Amino acid sequence: MRSIARGLGLGSAAMALTALTALAWPGTAGAAPAGTESLYAPSALVLGVTTGADADTGTVVRAVTLVCAPTPGGTHPDPVAACGELLANGSQLDPLAAPAADSVCTREWNPMTVTADGVWEGRRLNYTYTFANPCGLRNTTGVLFDF
Amino acid sequence: MRSIARGLGLGSAAMALTALTALAWPGTAGAAPAGTESLYAPSALVLGVTTGADADTGTVVRAVTLVCAPTPGGTHPDPVAACGELLANGSQLDPLAAPAADSVCTREWNPMTVTADGVWEGRRLNYTYTFANPCGLRNTTGVLFDF
Repeated sequence: MRSIARGLGLGSAAMALTALTALAWPGTAGAAPAGTESLYAPSALVLGVTTGADADTGTVVRAVTLVCAPTPGGTHPDPVAACGELLANGSQLDPLAAPAADSVCTREWNPMTVTADGVWEGRRLNYTYTFANPCGLRNTTGVLFDF
Repeated sequence: MRSIARGLGLGSAAMALTALTALAWPGTAGAAPAGTESLYAPSALVLGVTTGADADTGTVVRAVTLVCAPTPGGTHPDPVAACGELLANGSQLDPLAAPAADSVCTREWNPMTVTADGVWEGRRLNYTYTFANPCGLRNTTGVLFDF
């Protein structure tokens, strides 16, 4: 019996744990009962678009939420794809924000800044990326900031 | 006609705008079509509970989302009450995090930190509050960090 249990490996154990979590709180989309710890590392972000180059003083013109654990959700228009990009890139968001290599933009200075704030895999995350003008934002490589 | 329009006052105009917003994007819970600006100031937060006194290096043991515009939502267990507290306190969260005056706690040092990151009424918000031990967190004044 012992050898069978060991034979499951970490991957299967983690999958079983995820399934158990989903069963335990089916209606709350990621919130455990108050005062308890989640059985998974929390991943939830607020993504924003701010006018200007300074995220702390500029006006946030739009914002969405993105939850990636235990399942993708939030007000982001495509949570499944956005969470997939984050899983592939970890907390390194520059490759997702940067304009695609084949995009053609003018170069005037009319900055827009995107922000990602919250928690990624159990660690606090605060991220900003500034585009020279709105054209760069319209041509981001990923779907994460496409909202 | 002009006098009637003026007679509505700012409060009614704001209510009408909120209703219009809700009608415009009924299925997306606060997300405007990509590339457009919201007709309301965005308010969306990720609230977290972290072990230790340093929110940037500690482990986030649980986290929820809270959306307050155009309507309360997210994975927070009581979005309506939590948004009401925020509206009453603005972005000054200390009165909501601090333990209630009548709470009785021991004084050992076993710190827990709560965080609020995201956007409040169109401005980026990053907030932390550290409790000496979990008893303080269990006795917060508000419902905002009660999850």
